Amino acid sequence: MAAQRRPEDRDEPGGAVEVLADLGEDELLDRILPLFAVSPVVLVPAGDDAALLAATDSVLATTDAMVRGRDWLEAWSSAQDVGAKAVAQNVADIAAMGGVPTGLLVTLVADPRTPVAWVEEFSRGLAAAAGDAGVAVVGGDLSSAPEGTLVVSVTALGDLEGRDPVLRSGARVGDLVAVSGSLGRSAAGLLLLEQGREEEAPELVAAHRRPRPAYEQGPLAALAGASAMLDLSDGLVRDGRRVARASGVQLALTGEALAGDVRALVGAVGPERARDCVLTGGEEHSLLACFPADRAVPEGWRVLGEVRTGAGLTLDGQHLRGGGWDHFGSGREDDDPS
Amino acid sequence: MAAQRRPEDRDEPGGAVEVLADLGEDELLDRILPLFAVSPVVLVPAGDDAALLAATDSVLATTDAMVRGRDWLEAWSSAQDVGAKAVAQNVADIAAMGGVPTGLLVTLVADPRTPVAWVEEFSRGLAAAAGDAGVAVVGGDLSSAPEGTLVVSVTALGDLEGRDPVLRSGARVGDLVAVSGSLGRSAAGLLLLEQGREEEAPELVAAHRRPRPAYEQGPLAALAGASAMLDLSDGLVRDGRRVARASGVQLALTGEALAGDVRALVGAVGPERARDCVLTGGEEHSLLACFPADRAVPEGWRVLGEVRTGAGLTLDGQHLRGGGWDHFGSGREDDDPS
Repeated sequence: MAAQRRPEDRDEPGGAVEVLADLGEDELLDRILPLFAVSPVVLVPAGDDAALLAATDSVLATTDAMVRGRDWLEAWSSAQDVGAKAVAQNVADIAAMGGVPTGLLVTLVADPRTPVAWVEEFSRGLAAAAGDAGVAVVGGDLSSAPEGTLVVSVTALGDLEGRDPVLRSGARVGDLVAVSGSLGRSAAGLLLLEQGREEEAPELVAAHRRPRPAYEQGPLAALAGASAMLDLSDGLVRDGRRVARASGVQLALTGEALAGDVRALVGAVGPERARDCVLTGGEEHSLLACFPADRAVPEGWRVLGEVRTGAGLTLDGQHLRGGGWDHFGSGREDDDPS
Repeated sequence: MAAQRRPEDRDEPGGAVEVLADLGEDELLDRILPLFAVSPVVLVPAGDDAALLAATDSVLATTDAMVRGRDWLEAWSSAQDVGAKAVAQNVADIAAMGGVPTGLLVTLVADPRTPVAWVEEFSRGLAAAAGDAGVAVVGGDLSSAPEGTLVVSVTALGDLEGRDPVLRSGARVGDLVAVSGSLGRSAAGLLLLEQGREEEAPELVAAHRRPRPAYEQGPLAALAGASAMLDLSDGLVRDGRRVARASGVQLALTGEALAGDVRALVGAVGPERARDCVLTGGEEHSLLACFPADRAVPEGWRVLGEVRTGAGLTLDGQHLRGGGWDHFGSGREDDDPS
């Protein structure tokens, strides 16, 4: 089933684009593996049947896939952006449990006509983001795919270093609700890309292309006694409702607490869209947590409201259902009405 | 980007085929998650940002993807077969390090027009194989993909329970080379499928469709002092040469030791093909290990030869290079000539 090189691959004037079908799997690995840093927790690196990582007494594990055309568009995100984002969304999940990332496994399923340069740039973006998060790439897989397909699947492993995990279900009435990091910036950046206005606020577009959540706040929140936590991947309302549902409580937010977030986006996308981005914008990956009211909310977090009896998420007392992202598209909401 | 249902999806006489686009992601999860068994090592199951698994003091991690059209053909493998095989090839990698599997993360990237029934059957096959291997599904991801694409990506985690990992690099001159399980049966089964002769030896076809390596022999081999081990995913010659290269030795096998394996396949595929299947047939996932000669090779293993000074793999003194599988198809061999 060796993929054949076709004449139309030679689509650059004056020369051929080197594509994956031109290389052996191991030749490709020889090019990209040196990009990845090592880490002291890696006891056996990639290259054997499995990698071996040190673990305190348990291991966190999460996985997220990205598909070209659905999770990114070639015209809007560079290969480096895709690599960086694949790291960010997985490491944010580890942080949201109160853990530190210890290893990444990266699978690339690609049309054999994918340029080798794309894979190299993807690996550079991935390696830089992994290095920034202090995590090593310890394994992966390369597979060829049908024409036009490009899929990146990342698994992140993490360690709680003896801390208890911070679940979505631990929020208690009276807790404060707080966020670490921005709200709505990724969605606003996406909107600008859709409108061809990316030059008007490049910092928002960058937040969409290459989010850098404050991972380090996850373990700090756990140490500060956070009762519940998650990362905001599908929007404040939808993800907030997940915490509410898992904990059997209501998250009561105030418009005043969000006013600054909205204001920061109004210039770029207008007042109505700014509010939507803050409330329902996905892929922000900031951490949302609840903290017992008798303990100080740690530095780097700002209070958005409080936990009350009831259900769902309210803004100044009004229930919000929020939109969100549904991967197979029936539009059915995944959180129960409340 | 909600996928639209198209009229041509209604391609069954008298009724519509329910496809992924008809369901919300969470509705789909509601159907398949109950299929998966729980396990005492799972401290936090799927459903939060990350799962949490107990670990002795380290964690093994490996990942393998399967792509429809490359790793399986719809006509030859049922959805249950695909689910079972995805488990087998990953758990075999954990076993080959001397570990027991503790958790699986399963990602499905699928055309929204994929029948829901396929995903349910896939999940049943996966759940049965996972249960048989004593491992829980602790996470995953569902993504929609371009038309025609169906990708399964599995990450397996494992625990050494305090044992040292058995690497590919530990073989020492004088060790015995042994295998646990069959050789060439999966490749012979594939050959029969290719020739439309699957009814002549259904047990070989079953070995191809749904391998069941003796996972439990991995930890037992480690306890018995195995110096090196891997699972045979790319053929005896190619994988044996990997051990030789990693260990800086030669694996010297004897035709006599393999005669029974060849003989068992001659009736189905003829003498020449039988030999090829035994030497180079992939996807068998039996374990190949080296044991110090002063210790007994454990029950369930049979000796194929010995470790000598030199390089590569020999059969009755003759060097074999073997073919093998290269995912991007240049045909370049990944093991150095020796």
